[in-house]
Amino acid sequence: MSSARVHLFDSTLRDGAQTHGVDFSTPDKAAIAVALDAMGIDYIEGGWPGANPTDDAFFADPPSLGRARLCAFGMTRRAGRSADNDPGLRALLEAKAPVAVLVGKSWDFQCKVALGVEPGENLHMIADSIAFMSREKAEAMYDAEHFFDGYKANPAYATATVKAALEAGARWAVLCDTNGGTLAHEIGEIITALVADGIPGDRLGIHAHNDTGNAVANSLAAVRAGARQVQGTLNGLGERCGNANLVSLIPSLMLKMDLDVGLSPEHLVKLTETSRALDERLNRAPDRRAPYVGESAFAHKGGLHVSAVEKDPRCYEHIDPALVGNKRQILVSDQAGRSNVLSRLREIGLTVDPDDPKIARVVEEVKLREFKGYAYDGAGASFELLARRLLHRVPEYFRLTSFRVIDERRWNAKGELITLSEATIKADIGGEHHMAVAEGNGPVNALDAALRKVLVPAYPHLAGLRLVDYKVRILTPEAATAAVTRVLIESADRAGNRWTTVGVSPNVIDASFNALHDSITFALLGANVPAAETATAAE
Amino acid sequence: MSSARVHLFDSTLRDGAQTHGVDFSTPDKAAIAVALDAMGIDYIEGGWPGANPTDDAFFADPPSLGRARLCAFGMTRRAGRSADNDPGLRALLEAKAPVAVLVGKSWDFQCKVALGVEPGENLHMIADSIAFMSREKAEAMYDAEHFFDGYKANPAYATATVKAALEAGARWAVLCDTNGGTLAHEIGEIITALVADGIPGDRLGIHAHNDTGNAVANSLAAVRAGARQVQGTLNGLGERCGNANLVSLIPSLMLKMDLDVGLSPEHLVKLTETSRALDERLNRAPDRRAPYVGESAFAHKGGLHVSAVEKDPRCYEHIDPALVGNKRQILVSDQAGRSNVLSRLREIGLTVDPDDPKIARVVEEVKLREFKGYAYDGAGASFELLARRLLHRVPEYFRLTSFRVIDERRWNAKGELITLSEATIKADIGGEHHMAVAEGNGPVNALDAALRKVLVPAYPHLAGLRLVDYKVRILTPEAATAAVTRVLIESADRAGNRWTTVGVSPNVIDASFNALHDSITFALLGANVPAAETATAAE
Repeated sequence: MSSARVHLFDSTLRDGAQTHGVDFSTPDKAAIAVALDAMGIDYIEGGWPGANPTDDAFFADPPSLGRARLCAFGMTRRAGRSADNDPGLRALLEAKAPVAVLVGKSWDFQCKVALGVEPGENLHMIADSIAFMSREKAEAMYDAEHFFDGYKANPAYATATVKAALEAGARWAVLCDTNGGTLAHEIGEIITALVADGIPGDRLGIHAHNDTGNAVANSLAAVRAGARQVQGTLNGLGERCGNANLVSLIPSLMLKMDLDVGLSPEHLVKLTETSRALDERLNRAPDRRAPYVGESAFAHKGGLHVSAVEKDPRCYEHIDPALVGNKRQILVSDQAGRSNVLSRLREIGLTVDPDDPKIARVVEEVKLREFKGYAYDGAGASFELLARRLLHRVPEYFRLTSFRVIDERRWNAKGELITLSEATIKADIGGEHHMAVAEGNGPVNALDAALRKVLVPAYPHLAGLRLVDYKVRILTPEAATAAVTRVLIESADRAGNRWTTVGVSPNVIDASFNALHDSITFALLGANVPAAETATAAE
Repeated sequence: MSSARVHLFDSTLRDGAQTHGVDFSTPDKAAIAVALDAMGIDYIEGGWPGANPTDDAFFADPPSLGRARLCAFGMTRRAGRSADNDPGLRALLEAKAPVAVLVGKSWDFQCKVALGVEPGENLHMIADSIAFMSREKAEAMYDAEHFFDGYKANPAYATATVKAALEAGARWAVLCDTNGGTLAHEIGEIITALVADGIPGDRLGIHAHNDTGNAVANSLAAVRAGARQVQGTLNGLGERCGNANLVSLIPSLMLKMDLDVGLSPEHLVKLTETSRALDERLNRAPDRRAPYVGESAFAHKGGLHVSAVEKDPRCYEHIDPALVGNKRQILVSDQAGRSNVLSRLREIGLTVDPDDPKIARVVEEVKLREFKGYAYDGAGASFELLARRLLHRVPEYFRLTSFRVIDERRWNAKGELITLSEATIKADIGGEHHMAVAEGNGPVNALDAALRKVLVPAYPHLAGLRLVDYKVRILTPEAATAAVTRVLIESADRAGNRWTTVGVSPNVIDASFNALHDSITFALLGANVPAAETATAAE
């Protein structure tokens, strides 16, 4: 394997823009390009000038970049036209980008079926277009569409297209697995054959798609066979199943294959933040299971794993999470043993004697409750309250006397069908009896509003509380009579803190109330609010 | 590469149960085991007897399976105890499963650090435990924990653990990349060396994790090197970044590597359905970008790709999606919408003239409603009702005048905190006014009961209706005020028919009522029940 430097090429803004549900604005594109540049990426493909107004606007006024070279994408010239007279190439020429990327056909079947062009004419289209762009731009490269399928069908022709591009002046020929169906061993064998045929690996790139779940492995196989440019996208964006995920590839290339990709360790530390920032911009929940950067990537759930990790992290961690800007996480669950619970208690900041028999009580209680349907690994705040109640004391901020929720659907005076929800809450706060009624756009919303009305006068801190997510699951739905409802509520305060609580009951309203109760108690406890007046402490 | 049959081993119910946020109930486990058996999987690992109440309950009364062998997981015996006197092995013995899987240490560093046991003693622990289980069970296998890390540190010792297990009678030694940090070329090289060392590939298995995004590729590399058992989970469930995804592996093994994995083409066609059913059970949105089975896996955006695919699907599809039970999707195209709707109407058995302008109305209405939050893919019964209402006529079996649901939590006379739900329904049936009140263990249950009380006298067919599942999802939860609730209800009748309906509203009770209304209408329509007395038909 050659030890020459590997170049990174990001296509988030071009191939990634094809992702279902992704719609970048021009400012989005500029911000992402700047973030990629700060990460140390060599090439940033910004889009396809002439294809849509967003890309035209981006290339008319691109962001200023540091080391990264901005690339504009286009197609080889049409049949029967000269390169300098082709409208597509002209748009590329006018784009303010030093690098032109030209895609062309490398599979003879595609020339005929998709383009209606003879394979011989296609070779001229590639050579002319690349020669033209090499003269006019700082750099040109050739995207060999369907290269691997083409090579399997007709190796001589596929190879000829790559040689035509390189001889015409392309800095790189990028071998594309356009349909994403090629496996790693095939990629390795084909690139090895090309290199043996005299094509230098440091003029070959790889562009893989994830249709078999092998895009990352296919890219690594290409690098092992000698290719020295790797294309991909942030978080594996891209049409169908996505492109090769650069966020997974970069640490494997640097930390496991010990290759120089032009990034310093300081660049690598930005990986987790860069990956999550993209999701924030797209208003998507980050994939918690993403390799290297996911929230769960270094999470430990099984009890045995946790105690071993505490003895030596190499027991269950393949790298130090800090290298990629991520961190370890200990979960509590049905699978949990003493060591999970102990390390969670330490994280919370509860100092306990590991031999305290109360620890066993917490473990037992968690197991018992999870059997009943509670789920503590997604509801850290409820776990903390449970542990604090069993180990110390938690103030009782209020005591519910009763609640009533009414949902009514009827025809109103205007002849419209309307649905109203109304909740009444009665509660003791510091020995005094309070009650309130409120409406909501649903029973839980009404209950939440009434509870707040009752509590805010005594606890003004709660005015800033928001319910940001609400999830319901019916457990053991097969046993209809024994069915239990689990409610998970995510809350937030004005400072941006978020916490999740869980409630379980056969009755969804009851389960929701329990989760709300935990959420409010957690908010007050976290802010060190004392219980009102004469309230007694409850164990 | 040996052409011997590859065996598939599913660990969804054991390693997959470690997934953050996944908490299988005992009925969940039974249902998933049955689905895996129907898919043609060889081995199904059901859990860890003795580790938690869910797994104990599962192994006390496991579902009856066809071809698949049920496996119970445990650890090799403790140091300083005989195998038949080890409490962990005893729990395994009592579990009603013909196969015992024993995990043990194959990395000498782990013996000392995690277990505090000398490497020599560890070899005895492996051999004794496997020999004991081989005698007592139909089959025993050895999970070689940290095998690859161990092999890299001390190849002789790691190999010795595998040999100890096989010589003691293990049918398989499964090589585990426990931390998930090994790359495909390393896996290939190490297994090739083991086979050269005389260990037959058809006694070796691979258990890969996805911490570098290579779990699928690592499994394929192991098979190419000779391993003949592949472990994984449905949808890649598993702790941290997940296990190897069997749903991605199976079609690559069968269609691309042409290996016999024991599945027929008819089994393979169930792949998409099996994958999505697991997500439904977990109340998760299926990953639309999943290889082979994702909704976007064969999606094409308008333009060049679509016209090329229409000329020849090989232009942009690596396999025929029908082979895995998936289908092509053409996005953002009215034409595609039409043909989609037409093919669904044909499926339902509605004969329509393709040029009927009402078809366009159905397409528009579906788009509009999906934009509002309806999801017709998972609610075939609601789609059918919508189409029938727009194209023909659907009887109006009843007309709701009003409903009211009251949920009350209070202290009863015995000093217990109780929650009651009560629903009142008023409705017109065949021109007559009816009303009923009923209690339930939650608001939807009460509403369902009251609705049945009102309707059963007029429509006795409804007495056999059961509500078997109820799912709630909050859409756009970030925009708290604009949040909309989607309810999916699955119903069943006495003949075993099942159907799913959808309701959407800002109010969860309202959404539930809408889904119940569709469910009842669908049941009556399917049984060819005419609307009562003087009821008029509604368009």
